[in-house]
Amino acid sequence: MRFALGLEYDGSGYSGWQRLSPAGTHAADGSLQTALEIALSKVADARIDTVCAGRTDAGVHARCQVVHFDTDAVRDERGWVLGTTTNLPAALAVRWCVPVADDFSARFAARARRYRYRILNRGTRPGLERQYLSWERMPLDADAMHVAAQALRGECDFSAFRSIQCQAGHARRDLHDIVVTRHADELHVEVQANAFLHHMVRNIVGSLLLVGRGERPVEWIAELLEGRDRSVAGPTAPAAGLLFLGPRYPRQWGLPQDVCGDDTSS
Amino acid sequence: MRFALGLEYDGSGYSGWQRLSPAGTHAADGSLQTALEIALSKVADARIDTVCAGRTDAGVHARCQVVHFDTDAVRDERGWVLGTTTNLPAALAVRWCVPVADDFSARFAARARRYRYRILNRGTRPGLERQYLSWERMPLDADAMHVAAQALRGECDFSAFRSIQCQAGHARRDLHDIVVTRHADELHVEVQANAFLHHMVRNIVGSLLLVGRGERPVEWIAELLEGRDRSVAGPTAPAAGLLFLGPRYPRQWGLPQDVCGDDTSS
Repeated sequence: MRFALGLEYDGSGYSGWQRLSPAGTHAADGSLQTALEIALSKVADARIDTVCAGRTDAGVHARCQVVHFDTDAVRDERGWVLGTTTNLPAALAVRWCVPVADDFSARFAARARRYRYRILNRGTRPGLERQYLSWERMPLDADAMHVAAQALRGECDFSAFRSIQCQAGHARRDLHDIVVTRHADELHVEVQANAFLHHMVRNIVGSLLLVGRGERPVEWIAELLEGRDRSVAGPTAPAAGLLFLGPRYPRQWGLPQDVCGDDTSS
Repeated sequence: MRFALGLEYDGSGYSGWQRLSPAGTHAADGSLQTALEIALSKVADARIDTVCAGRTDAGVHARCQVVHFDTDAVRDERGWVLGTTTNLPAALAVRWCVPVADDFSARFAARARRYRYRILNRGTRPGLERQYLSWERMPLDADAMHVAAQALRGECDFSAFRSIQCQAGHARRDLHDIVVTRHADELHVEVQANAFLHHMVRNIVGSLLLVGRGERPVEWIAELLEGRDRSVAGPTAPAAGLLFLGPRYPRQWGLPQDVCGDDTSS
């Protein structure tokens, strides 16, 4: 029996999604994946391994990470949701769990992933909500950042915004939309693509910040994209500001509404 | 020279605003007041004591607490803001600092205080933002809570919502407005009054939750208020959900816009 499960987490103090302990073991290793698998395995009373929609880095949070897993254990949905949450550390909570077809993959069935990046833009660093914010003391021009970002829409080669550790086979991704908005002293960069390269959102934000501070012209983002050279782009923005809002799957899989829909536009 | 200072903080892990260490000492005591006074005293190179607009309890947060303090030290506003923030623990940050008239009092000049209480309303506890949320697993009727709460508007005796430890001389307060709204799976209770009794917001929320769950009728809140009996009202809602948005002062004091205005309505 295969299940899909929606999970939220505060990634502060975790090493990231990916399990670090050797395959076949479930030793606590500071990863979110291991924390979830330990809790699921307690509920199933058998070892459970998971596959996720988007591997988040150390310090990155998720509103709705989705995983799938296989099990012979017979539990009702309430048992998976409440039993697993009870066994999770405080930073993780299950949102839902539903049975799915055997050929569903949380990773390969996802048609889109959506992220939000939050920047506090004021003279002093954050106290409140500091786990969820990055901070920029220089005044940012959100409109210029938004205009600049539109050059990234569509299917492009994102080599300029790819971590040198990125293991993807190629750098082409289809970026559905990217919107920069100001909310009082906070800027949000919200971006959706079919998939993302390693550090892609944080590298895009790092370059947009140079435009926002007026250190680079609006056209610079288009030039970066065209040049495909990571070394001339901006620095990687800090992890804390990044929130994985979640993936989206075609309706055929019958998943909960917050991750369901063929619509790949915003 | 007297200054007014705006401060934000994450109250998680603090004993509350109020200094616990004996007068005349600044030994770290887990209070937010002492943390601020130690940082201010370092910048001034002399002992500084503060008076605040609203003493928050353990675990309660502030978007804009306001304090005043007196000092002979000559520093520019940037020095007070940046120097103090540098010396503060990560959970606290100064938003602004301005010189004020000698008869300004952060406590007595405030014409209104505003709070927001956040409730996550879903089957499982929060993982993300759990420091800033309380949690209710039973479905809540936000409209019923809002209608019930309107009985609390105006100048009333709030004995039914007053902590037994409350040291105020009387229980009459002028409640300017109270609004209950739903934002997806989150409820916000936002309330403004000229001043609040000890635990008043959390006790109001605790009773509104009984209405929201359908365990009490909408009219019950009006009856509670009328009866002035704390022992028959709902329990005190948890501290984590409570955020002190800040006080408001008459325009004559020339304070920053976020705390300035004679307008006492929302």
